[in-house]
Amino acid sequence: MLTEIIIVGDELVSGKTRDLNGWYASGCLISCGLEVHEITTVGDNYDTLSGALRTAVQRSRFVIITGGLGPTDDDLTAETAAKVLDKPLSLDQGLLDHIKKSTERLGLPWSPNLEKLALLPRGAKVLDPKGYACGFSVAKGNSQLYFLPGVPAQMREMMDRFVVPDILSRYRPSTVPHHRILKVFGLSESQIADVLSGVSDDLKRLMFGFYPSFPETHVTITIRGEDVAEIEGELTAAENQITTLLDPYVFASGDKTLEAVVGEELKARNMTLSLAESCTGGLIGHRLTSVSGSSVYFERGAVVYSDRSKVEMLGVQQHTLDTYGAVSDQTVREMAEGIRRSAKTDMGLAVTGIAGPLGGSKDKPVGTVFIGLSARGKLFSGQYRFPGDRQSVKVATAEMALDWVRRYLHGHPFIPGI
Amino acid sequence: MLTEIIIVGDELVSGKTRDLNGWYASGCLISCGLEVHEITTVGDNYDTLSGALRTAVQRSRFVIITGGLGPTDDDLTAETAAKVLDKPLSLDQGLLDHIKKSTERLGLPWSPNLEKLALLPRGAKVLDPKGYACGFSVAKGNSQLYFLPGVPAQMREMMDRFVVPDILSRYRPSTVPHHRILKVFGLSESQIADVLSGVSDDLKRLMFGFYPSFPETHVTITIRGEDVAEIEGELTAAENQITTLLDPYVFASGDKTLEAVVGEELKARNMTLSLAESCTGGLIGHRLTSVSGSSVYFERGAVVYSDRSKVEMLGVQQHTLDTYGAVSDQTVREMAEGIRRSAKTDMGLAVTGIAGPLGGSKDKPVGTVFIGLSARGKLFSGQYRFPGDRQSVKVATAEMALDWVRRYLHGHPFIPGI
Repeated sequence: MLTEIIIVGDELVSGKTRDLNGWYASGCLISCGLEVHEITTVGDNYDTLSGALRTAVQRSRFVIITGGLGPTDDDLTAETAAKVLDKPLSLDQGLLDHIKKSTERLGLPWSPNLEKLALLPRGAKVLDPKGYACGFSVAKGNSQLYFLPGVPAQMREMMDRFVVPDILSRYRPSTVPHHRILKVFGLSESQIADVLSGVSDDLKRLMFGFYPSFPETHVTITIRGEDVAEIEGELTAAENQITTLLDPYVFASGDKTLEAVVGEELKARNMTLSLAESCTGGLIGHRLTSVSGSSVYFERGAVVYSDRSKVEMLGVQQHTLDTYGAVSDQTVREMAEGIRRSAKTDMGLAVTGIAGPLGGSKDKPVGTVFIGLSARGKLFSGQYRFPGDRQSVKVATAEMALDWVRRYLHGHPFIPGI
Repeated sequence: MLTEIIIVGDELVSGKTRDLNGWYASGCLISCGLEVHEITTVGDNYDTLSGALRTAVQRSRFVIITGGLGPTDDDLTAETAAKVLDKPLSLDQGLLDHIKKSTERLGLPWSPNLEKLALLPRGAKVLDPKGYACGFSVAKGNSQLYFLPGVPAQMREMMDRFVVPDILSRYRPSTVPHHRILKVFGLSESQIADVLSGVSDDLKRLMFGFYPSFPETHVTITIRGEDVAEIEGELTAAENQITTLLDPYVFASGDKTLEAVVGEELKARNMTLSLAESCTGGLIGHRLTSVSGSSVYFERGAVVYSDRSKVEMLGVQQHTLDTYGAVSDQTVREMAEGIRRSAKTDMGLAVTGIAGPLGGSKDKPVGTVFIGLSARGKLFSGQYRFPGDRQSVKVATAEMALDWVRRYLHGHPFIPGI
């Protein structure tokens, strides 16, 4: 059963605004057991919008249209729909009274162009007769069309409260897709695909999707079916098998972040962590503290951007800096050891590197990064070379450093540096 | 002259991922003086993609297609294009050699499915023969099609470096829209609109756009025309007038970030800065160090998440913490003073607050934040209450703290706290 979405707005086809409605509406339709065939984004333009509407009515059972319902001259959606669907605009007096009352209640001045909001294609049903935002539904042939406001918050509320229930009252899904997400770090998309080609035959009917979310890759496992318990069982089996196959590169499932996983692992062991960040400038601390309750395990961080701060805050030897440089294995080891000792935490994590674009040399090109971890009387360190621009190097360094903590706590070997 | 964009990816029609490429590509086409007729988003599905491609080739002069060019089985774009355009896939040996070399250089293992990346529709021209990401261009009838990777960073680079110049070599725009962006922090969209209703009449023919980019609002000023010198003159006059009207809330123009502006201002005055961050956890340091060359003015940061770290790293009095609490005006003043003194910098900037969702009280609800700034023997502090979730409070706090530095250096009063 085809469904589609039409997004209307000049700002969306001119690079001014990023669309959020297509994304949201498609998620809602998926949750109804439907699939979205196409999302069409057009400007506030009679010709293109009418073309999109005409095609949609011919082929799709459910059509969601957002945007272009406002009171100003550039809002053409209701008028265009009236012509394409051959249902002339007519004034909905009840809606007009309601709009007048709402405007008054909000203390806003009445403007004659607000009357336009009550002009709907004949036979249209107002979705939320008591709300402030205007949206309506109308049937044409075999299609049910839903016209919603373009303001994301209004659109979402109307989608959740009126459109989804209305769709489910007209259509009983036979199968609904269920899915799991596994988050992977340290393997490329094609390396993951290679490994997944080795899943057992009884899992072959699962569908896999790969979504790079730098520097992570998110793998979705999808299965459609009727029996929820059976499907969830299969998904769990698949998740377990794939996690084992990709071990130790899968760091989380669902929408959990790496910093949340690291936090949980520390909390479960009643352990504390401190940070010494040079090239990441505070990004690792920012990520760790994005988790509510992180103060239980995160004690402090030192953002040691100058040589002097490395000496004063961490006790790095001036001699080490002079001999090996601030970006060196020797320095990162003293950093990790120094922060752990002064913070009196169980673990000390340190990074130093050249994020670029300046500062690289032949020996230590841009992207050269050292990571150090001091824990339980042991000291680990490794060297990496991360590709990309300044931001990419910072992001990859923070991810790798956090993954070192996860791997240490799990007893996995660290990802070897170069 | 019609142009359109086709966005390919299951994740984009199932509510999993928000599209960024359609937005970016349409902005690029607009900057070439073209208009975008339609953005079509389809899944990795032969039927829907081939339908969209067929329609596009019939009607549009330029077509941008992003996504579905990867090595895995679900990537169907090249194959579908080959069939629809009647240009069978053939192996581009030069591209294959290049992919092999790039993979080797990055230390990644070779995987046979990578060979798929070098299978292009006959006659296709590789856009970036020396790059890592694959993209190609092919002509069909009167249409020029550009196939780009779906990963936004790769897509953007290819769009900027190869597609825009190629389009401009094939098409000479008569009028091009010119625009300026002013970045505003501290005023709401409707407050800005009210102020802009006061611009002088000779600027009224400019078009204004308001684009919230939390916690900032970006205002675009657009004008279309042929005479570039005249237009640029008008834009500069408009920019100056509006900046004055909105003073001191406009912190940057163009694509400059607040942290870049703060960095430039510090550098110009040969001044240095240190940070003491509690609730932001390192975010301010991360932002400051996202600017290349920031080590000249950014000396160090202390991420003082525990009370003990505030005492040990900054010399905050235990008595102050016991009497007023870690989130208090007294504490933030000692933090700012403490970091400036120990780092021996010209300025010390400090923040402490309750990011939530836990930790709020009646007196100090979630979102309560104190900012302190120590500079040239003076000590400033202020209290705020920021709305929203944990991430929003962190982001708003970092922005406000950085804006304090900018305002201090400009001699503007700080934004009053509550």
